[in-house]
Amino acid sequence: MASKLTSREADYSRWYNELVVQADLAQHSDVKGCMVIKPYGFAIWERMKDVLDGMFKETGHVNAYFPLFIPKSYFSKEADHVEGFAKECAVVTHYRLMKDPDGKGVVVDPSAKLEEELIVRPTSETIIWHTYKGWIQSYRDLPLLINQWANVVRWEMRTRLFLRTSEFLWQEGHTAHETSTEAVEEARRMLEVYADFAEQWMAMPVLKGVKSANERFAGALDTYCIEAMMQDGKALQAGTSHFLGQNFAKAFDVKFATRDGEQEHVWATSWGVSTRLMGALIMTHSDDAGLVLPPKLAPIEVVLVPIYKGPEQMEEIVAALKAIADQLKAAGIRVKLDDDDSKRSGWKFAEYELKGVPVRLAMGPRDLAGGTIEVARRDTQTKSFEQAEGIVTHVQRLLEEIQANLFNRSAERTASTTRSVDTWEEFLEALEAGGFVSAHWDGTPETEEWIKQQTKATIRCIPLDAPEDHGVCIKTGAPSNRRVIFARAY
Amino acid sequence: MASKLTSREADYSRWYNELVVQADLAQHSDVKGCMVIKPYGFAIWERMKDVLDGMFKETGHVNAYFPLFIPKSYFSKEADHVEGFAKECAVVTHYRLMKDPDGKGVVVDPSAKLEEELIVRPTSETIIWHTYKGWIQSYRDLPLLINQWANVVRWEMRTRLFLRTSEFLWQEGHTAHETSTEAVEEARRMLEVYADFAEQWMAMPVLKGVKSANERFAGALDTYCIEAMMQDGKALQAGTSHFLGQNFAKAFDVKFATRDGEQEHVWATSWGVSTRLMGALIMTHSDDAGLVLPPKLAPIEVVLVPIYKGPEQMEEIVAALKAIADQLKAAGIRVKLDDDDSKRSGWKFAEYELKGVPVRLAMGPRDLAGGTIEVARRDTQTKSFEQAEGIVTHVQRLLEEIQANLFNRSAERTASTTRSVDTWEEFLEALEAGGFVSAHWDGTPETEEWIKQQTKATIRCIPLDAPEDHGVCIKTGAPSNRRVIFARAY
Repeated sequence: MASKLTSREADYSRWYNELVVQADLAQHSDVKGCMVIKPYGFAIWERMKDVLDGMFKETGHVNAYFPLFIPKSYFSKEADHVEGFAKECAVVTHYRLMKDPDGKGVVVDPSAKLEEELIVRPTSETIIWHTYKGWIQSYRDLPLLINQWANVVRWEMRTRLFLRTSEFLWQEGHTAHETSTEAVEEARRMLEVYADFAEQWMAMPVLKGVKSANERFAGALDTYCIEAMMQDGKALQAGTSHFLGQNFAKAFDVKFATRDGEQEHVWATSWGVSTRLMGALIMTHSDDAGLVLPPKLAPIEVVLVPIYKGPEQMEEIVAALKAIADQLKAAGIRVKLDDDDSKRSGWKFAEYELKGVPVRLAMGPRDLAGGTIEVARRDTQTKSFEQAEGIVTHVQRLLEEIQANLFNRSAERTASTTRSVDTWEEFLEALEAGGFVSAHWDGTPETEEWIKQQTKATIRCIPLDAPEDHGVCIKTGAPSNRRVIFARAY
Repeated sequence: MASKLTSREADYSRWYNELVVQADLAQHSDVKGCMVIKPYGFAIWERMKDVLDGMFKETGHVNAYFPLFIPKSYFSKEADHVEGFAKECAVVTHYRLMKDPDGKGVVVDPSAKLEEELIVRPTSETIIWHTYKGWIQSYRDLPLLINQWANVVRWEMRTRLFLRTSEFLWQEGHTAHETSTEAVEEARRMLEVYADFAEQWMAMPVLKGVKSANERFAGALDTYCIEAMMQDGKALQAGTSHFLGQNFAKAFDVKFATRDGEQEHVWATSWGVSTRLMGALIMTHSDDAGLVLPPKLAPIEVVLVPIYKGPEQMEEIVAALKAIADQLKAAGIRVKLDDDDSKRSGWKFAEYELKGVPVRLAMGPRDLAGGTIEVARRDTQTKSFEQAEGIVTHVQRLLEEIQANLFNRSAERTASTTRSVDTWEEFLEALEAGGFVSAHWDGTPETEEWIKQQTKATIRCIPLDAPEDHGVCIKTGAPSNRRVIFARAY
């Protein structure tokens, strides 16, 4: 078991790093910037993946798989894209090793040099649009609604488990459409899917918005995003959905015969979420005792722990817990009965608390005799004694309550740290306090950049539901007719 | 729709290549040796993956994820492994591109050279055992039963879609155990899982056996395998499960405190199947009209096609078919109702035949009036007319019958082309005829190698259930007490 965690107040960043490792979610590997996702962490990611995959399929998408390697020249085809992505990436230059002629070990065989270097995909727009050229001839081939689950690599100098790693796992949707309108609708539909997933499954409230030009995806006309607020007052971009216009279709010459018999370039979107969501999940709910997981994504929703002295008591209590575990399983709840005799119950309590299991049921000899059971909630760290009979219904309700409570708690925290400001002084104060800051901005990239340089705050998004609201830019005093959301961010 | 396929008899290899492309399963990409798995092909792979993943979990395994990149030096640690794997592989030497100073486009930034090159994983034993060192201290940490779904790269000069590609998708199980016996049991357990999957789901009979020393995995003490026989008389290795002894534990210094308080090296297995299974599935069942899929793995088990003239007939018939489709869905059957008015029914018939949909239901105006429906089986290419009422039960039985028939047909073909021979002449004749050849061998690598050089036939396996049978080696006449299985192979 783990040593005690640093508290969030003492050092939030350290708390996070310790928690990820101690709760067995992930660890750094020897390969710079690459992480190992441990079985417990991967089980959470698998649940997220399964749910998202189901949501993508319900909205008409299918999965496919495109190559890991992209020829270097593809990156030069879309002018903005090369700026954004072809810089920090893993470059394959050779395809063979040989025995070191001067000793043992292996060296790169200089004769096995590739004619054109291959880039390990940082994102797949280029290779996918190169492929789509062969798939799209007419409007009958549209829309093309494809998603890919894959690993990608973006060379990062400063990495943090889940939040920023050189290799990460993600999904990338790439769709092709007849019209600009349909493509925008698709980009916004997938933003809604992401927002629903974040709120309904991760219990994480998000702001839906569109990025300013500075923060747009390299090659997009518009980048929609969901932004979440972490406990330390920093924002985290949790998912993006891009309207790509005809940029990639033009770069890769993908045209289709329209209903009127004309030739037109195809309209595109792409959208993705990654293992970064794991970081968002952890930072949204967890506390100084460890991980806190929303029941809907927890690999184990309920753990059952027997408390006993001696093998006879153990046998009786484990049998009673096993009967309850079976009933819970039959109700579709993911349970674990921990009857490992080599570990003490106190150790187990701390372990499952650290691992964020939403509900713990414990039974001792007195409970057994009295027909009761101890029920502990991870979210509030409160306990109660309940009748063992009818416990399934109680637990079902409790899991729903915990899911709702986690969402409400985060929503209240986000709301209470979202501040509307009208002057530069108020803006600075709000930033120091942490949270989202709603302010007027003159709409220019220069002002945005200046603010970022001065304060490290960026425009997280222009909210989709922002009402018209006339005011003046906090920096330049120029007129503005809508507030945007600033924050310091991960 | 596709042009007519080359027949298997005319050119088996060409038939396969055309089929994979025309049935929309996969295609070559511009990146040498890397394929694009198209949505229909990927849907089949996804089903295989889901079923296998369930089987792994039922046998106590959990998933995790390890880095794509492996430091070059790791490969030198296990002497046999470096021989087998560190040769033809993708080598990452740089981590940045820059604008070409002499023009447009991008070039590799020479200043961004890695101190140690990274290898794109061809298999993950080395990085996983490096990681396990930190996870295993005592017998209490064992067994460690972990699987990974991942992409791997082995640079191949001559590639074929699914069968041999530079990048492929696979799963690799890596387990650690207290004793040699437990590790061998695990390796054989997973071989049984693979064999069950091949036979029960893919409807593909397999031989279970152990590899000769020459054909063993680089670093294994024993390689167990399943071998299937394709329609052209060539064998295909469909899955392998390795008993690794203590080789990797010694190479990466992974010891554990035993129950007696001693320090001992851990015992290991690894096992994997890949997208190569797609090639096996295609070649086992398909025919000159296209793909033939076993119902249990078919993305669409039943397609419903309306036959009509004019919108009024169409509406009535589609409504009747929709009611049937809904009943089939409710019974858990994967169905597609193709009511696309822009395609003729004859076109649809050919299309779903090419795509291997097991059952086709068609309804015309006379069927509607008479309460009948046409039922076509893909495996036998036969048709019958059935009462529309009660069609669900009929279809359920038919799908089971098709699944069984595909297995039986392949089993009969495999049996009828398996020949037991006792002389060199008989051996050569049997090889020319195609199929498995059961023969005596003197047990030496030299004889095996000589036979391979002369005939291109390899020892596919020494069957696990081979009875003792005294004879003499077909080549050297030296005594042998067990027959082994030879074949030419993919």
